[in-house]
Amino acid sequence: MNNDSSSQIVEKLKKIIDSSAPGTRLPSTRSLVTEFQASPVTVQKALQSLSMQGLIESRPGIGTFTRSSGLTRPADYSWQSTALGSARTRRTAAATPLGRPGNDSLSLHHGYPEPGLLPSRLVRSAVNRASRSESALACPPPGGLPDLQRWFARELAEQSIGSVTPTAKDVIIMPGSQSGLSSIFASLVGAGQPLLVESPTYWGALLAAENAGVQLIPVSSGPNGPDPVELSKAFDRSGARMFYAQPNFANPTGAQWTAALKEQILAVVRRHSAFLVEDDWAHDFGIESSSIPLAAADDSGHVIYIRSLTKSVSPSLRVAAVITRGPARDRILANTAAEAMYVSGLLQAAALDVVTQPAWNTHLRSLRSQLSARRDLLISSLHAEAPEAQLELVPQGGLNLWLRLPEHTDLKLLTQDCLRAGLAIAGEVNWFPAEPAGKYLRVNYAGERSAEFPEAARILGEALRSQ
Amino acid sequence: MNNDSSSQIVEKLKKIIDSSAPGTRLPSTRSLVTEFQASPVTVQKALQSLSMQGLIESRPGIGTFTRSSGLTRPADYSWQSTALGSARTRRTAAATPLGRPGNDSLSLHHGYPEPGLLPSRLVRSAVNRASRSESALACPPPGGLPDLQRWFARELAEQSIGSVTPTAKDVIIMPGSQSGLSSIFASLVGAGQPLLVESPTYWGALLAAENAGVQLIPVSSGPNGPDPVELSKAFDRSGARMFYAQPNFANPTGAQWTAALKEQILAVVRRHSAFLVEDDWAHDFGIESSSIPLAAADDSGHVIYIRSLTKSVSPSLRVAAVITRGPARDRILANTAAEAMYVSGLLQAAALDVVTQPAWNTHLRSLRSQLSARRDLLISSLHAEAPEAQLELVPQGGLNLWLRLPEHTDLKLLTQDCLRAGLAIAGEVNWFPAEPAGKYLRVNYAGERSAEFPEAARILGEALRSQ
Repeated sequence: MNNDSSSQIVEKLKKIIDSSAPGTRLPSTRSLVTEFQASPVTVQKALQSLSMQGLIESRPGIGTFTRSSGLTRPADYSWQSTALGSARTRRTAAATPLGRPGNDSLSLHHGYPEPGLLPSRLVRSAVNRASRSESALACPPPGGLPDLQRWFARELAEQSIGSVTPTAKDVIIMPGSQSGLSSIFASLVGAGQPLLVESPTYWGALLAAENAGVQLIPVSSGPNGPDPVELSKAFDRSGARMFYAQPNFANPTGAQWTAALKEQILAVVRRHSAFLVEDDWAHDFGIESSSIPLAAADDSGHVIYIRSLTKSVSPSLRVAAVITRGPARDRILANTAAEAMYVSGLLQAAALDVVTQPAWNTHLRSLRSQLSARRDLLISSLHAEAPEAQLELVPQGGLNLWLRLPEHTDLKLLTQDCLRAGLAIAGEVNWFPAEPAGKYLRVNYAGERSAEFPEAARILGEALRSQ
Repeated sequence: MNNDSSSQIVEKLKKIIDSSAPGTRLPSTRSLVTEFQASPVTVQKALQSLSMQGLIESRPGIGTFTRSSGLTRPADYSWQSTALGSARTRRTAAATPLGRPGNDSLSLHHGYPEPGLLPSRLVRSAVNRASRSESALACPPPGGLPDLQRWFARELAEQSIGSVTPTAKDVIIMPGSQSGLSSIFASLVGAGQPLLVESPTYWGALLAAENAGVQLIPVSSGPNGPDPVELSKAFDRSGARMFYAQPNFANPTGAQWTAALKEQILAVVRRHSAFLVEDDWAHDFGIESSSIPLAAADDSGHVIYIRSLTKSVSPSLRVAAVITRGPARDRILANTAAEAMYVSGLLQAAALDVVTQPAWNTHLRSLRSQLSARRDLLISSLHAEAPEAQLELVPQGGLNLWLRLPEHTDLKLLTQDCLRAGLAIAGEVNWFPAEPAGKYLRVNYAGERSAEFPEAARILGEALRSQ
């Protein structure tokens, strides 16, 4: 018997396969030997060829079965829908300020400062130095490079008014604050458990929380921050053990809590034996005011402090710190080690290099005046060109204005209209853990082409009036 | 009334605080005014001072309460234990090969290749180039830098025998394969659901799985890989929809599946409408054999392929790819975006730079012969000095030998004895998803001071015989 026999067998079996449902048993090797008067080796060769083409499969000790003749159709992944079941997360990162608008659009949309506001020369030379250091080829400890841990601890300790100041071992280095939030929510709250959050608040925190499966409980927060009495009731009602908040220059509202409010909120948190996750995202973006962490007044492990360098140093140096004490620290570290093992030592060394240069402080001072000028230009532009958009608070720091739009505004349509006129806005981002409390738009004054804010405001104003 | 009144009130209240339980209500402002004949302002000043010292707290509209006089004692975080409840993860990264032995110890312990086996010059110059590029200051798309996605897709496509070859959009760039595993287990399996894993298998995967709360189902796997019939039964029994495996140079066993076994396993996976997570961790560490991904034969989205550059390029360039198709890809991307937002563009650009240099292939060839020599030296040293440790398989690639030790071995004691004699071993790492099948030790031949393998083997042999 020759190869032609093998081909004949293949042809015959292909016909069977084409006319059978997947999973149909094929004639046995023995019967094929008889039918084609072929050797077992030839039959085996034919079966192997069909198997390699994905048309059949052999189940050892049972027989050979048709798989599917569908390989000539477009690949079909529909089986995955059944295998995967329902999805947990409704929010996605798709409709968020991470997406980049077209290159020729103006933008009030992005969440990160444009490269012109970053300490570019410091970053490039720090990375260059790190490339020649040991950190380029080594594997750092899971908690982080000790020198960088020390730097973060010292920064917080310098603002400390409590009797217990943070030390290097209280610091866990994270690959960005998003990972920090994910680890905290997953390891300290857990799926199905309640988490109090300001409403509105940072969309990334809401995303991380939903991804961890926690139940979001809104605590209304406006230009003055949350009401301590309402917060206390929300703790009582929900049984929550954690409150996520941004006490300084909250994203998106820009609110900064007064010293008295900070004290009251901390008291409420203590009284409920709960955690306050303090996201100090805008620590380097003070304008008239500076960020004063609530964590600096905590001496019994109630505040979990997150401080990132990603936004102020460079989006490529994804390095953040979580500072906390007690068993909570150990749980977060165990979770983050399981999730990410460790943070690139190269990025850690470069970030530390940047923030320990004298030029870093010079940069921060110049950034302060640039942000001030940008904020004021955008406010005056909006005032002149888009008076329909109401600003409830002139933020004393941060990167954003929080605009209240007329109730009839269709945010999706507004976003489309603006984009058509050459302006990207973040109209479809949901900043609310439950229903939005109104029609709001966050506009960012740290993006590119800030000189054209008047034009951006004009486009927004026209789009608002055309609704 | 002067400040002395205020001090007197403070002194009086401190006595009350010291003798009261936390939460005791203090005399009202009005009664203090009467008692001390002080103005309300003076009383308020005293209360504020005590509040700043953390000794009291005021509940608006209710009164002022003692907090705790315990601030002079060491900080007490015991309230956290109640707040946090029981912990989910039993495994921790603490007792793992990430820990570094003392500097003067020999080591068969570490999981990463020592710097001498890394393409140091390529890494340093790639990072240096990246420091001058746009990637140093920019924020890349959530899925990864398109050029790096394309590189990973092309590498897998070149080995492809299926009818559907992977494309750039099938690739998700991850901050290391640990993050990839975490995302896959969390988004596609989920807490409480079953996951089949080889037994033994990589401890990091077990850690990621337990952290995601999935239920581990062991499938026994030795020098020949898993038995397809047993795998099929395990799918039937458990209802699992996913099997995590390392078909090439498995960690720790070193097993490489034959082509026939790969085909059979893939058929079992297909028949159960399930996913195979193929962790191709040793793709760059072939010795006699090369890694041939099972993913290259998959054309209907059953294989989720993970390929990391961290181990072979540099531990500081934490970049890995997950390649998969269909709804599974979207779920993984949504999860990883929520967990980590994006991977540093600097690391992505530098990693791509390294693997696209002609010198990268030269490096891989030289690495192959270095690994071969190291492996053979360690095998012959163990044979001569520690014949009690049986090697079941000479691995054709990877970084490890998997040794079976006598049944009476106390692994904890062995680890201590070896460390005392100057050798770090990973005796306390648990490679088994359930009970260990025997006394085993993984030894790594990619660590530092390989010329001293004979001495390392001598220490191990003596420690074994002393038990």
